[in-house]
Amino acid sequence: MNFLEERILKDGIVKEGNVLKVDSFLNHQMDIALIDRIGEEFYERFKDKKITKVLTIEASGIAIACAVARCFGVPMVFAKKSKSVNIDGDVYVAEVESFTHKTQNRVIVSKRFLGPEDHVLIVDDFLANGCALQGLISITEGAGATVEGLGIVIEKGFQFGGRAIRNLGYHLESIAIVESMDAEAGSVQFADQGK
Amino acid sequence: MNFLEERILKDGIVKEGNVLKVDSFLNHQMDIALIDRIGEEFYERFKDKKITKVLTIEASGIAIACAVARCFGVPMVFAKKSKSVNIDGDVYVAEVESFTHKTQNRVIVSKRFLGPEDHVLIVDDFLANGCALQGLISITEGAGATVEGLGIVIEKGFQFGGRAIRNLGYHLESIAIVESMDAEAGSVQFADQGK
Repeated sequence: MNFLEERILKDGIVKEGNVLKVDSFLNHQMDIALIDRIGEEFYERFKDKKITKVLTIEASGIAIACAVARCFGVPMVFAKKSKSVNIDGDVYVAEVESFTHKTQNRVIVSKRFLGPEDHVLIVDDFLANGCALQGLISITEGAGATVEGLGIVIEKGFQFGGRAIRNLGYHLESIAIVESMDAEAGSVQFADQGK
Repeated sequence: MNFLEERILKDGIVKEGNVLKVDSFLNHQMDIALIDRIGEEFYERFKDKKITKVLTIEASGIAIACAVARCFGVPMVFAKKSKSVNIDGDVYVAEVESFTHKTQNRVIVSKRFLGPEDHVLIVDDFLANGCALQGLISITEGAGATVEGLGIVIEKGFQFGGRAIRNLGYHLESIAIVESMDAEAGSVQFADQGK
């Protein structure tokens, strides 16, 4: 078991409906030492790639992306959720469905911060149906930039998002892959990634 | 002139309507070395206080708050913008008006992450009319915790937010205070803080 899986077992809370609450250390209250350790883990897994930008989506991806960008010594860019119906020509746009809120979000990245010269590592805290990641892939490729890889903190392996993105040929790494959860027993099973 | 004022003059863009765009290094694309330097600056200014939590509001405050929390060796908590009309009893709530979007946001913090034992440093990237800060103060004091200080990256000194909060007796530190801006000339004048 790796450091993150151990922490999930220790402090994660399993709720009905396949909800895993990790808000005491990852996405509401944040344990900075853990966030930094996650950054180093992604650096280890992608350090052979030439990364020029780390891309994520607001809000809880921001801390992770900062920790990764620090290790690579590159800027971090976060896609913003936009309320505007009218988007000017200066931004890349993607439509993203939120698993948690069941809402449709328009996310944008300014064209000034992504271009054909960029080699991008996309990171986020959770991967379920993969809509957020697909939006970030679409924005990166729309900019003519190269998706060098995707780093996820916690993947819900029983949903289809991760499989869909790997099937498309992308290099996706998740530090913990949850295979199943049981709210009654409060238990979590992880996929054996052989690492 | 300090490191942040220099960076604003170099890379900030002044737009009509007293808008200062710093999205190339602070709140869309992020320069991690600068963010870390800001964290150290707030640590220097508040290190005599006994801080147990750093509190901010999503989204662009998160990176700053992580950098500060790392220096103090304490957890970071970010208030979440909530879409739900029905809030259960497990959260502290404040109403916050957004200067940028002219909208009303309900922000929440779980009661599990703030309590009477906490000594809180509140941080954010921008201070204009002070609504976000007042919401975070209200949440902190509603939890019975102590507001030890407030750290702002860029304060708009010509708006009333900073004065109102200082008049209430809070220890508010801003790294850069913009006194005036001129969109036509592209110029920014900073308040002389005598530091």
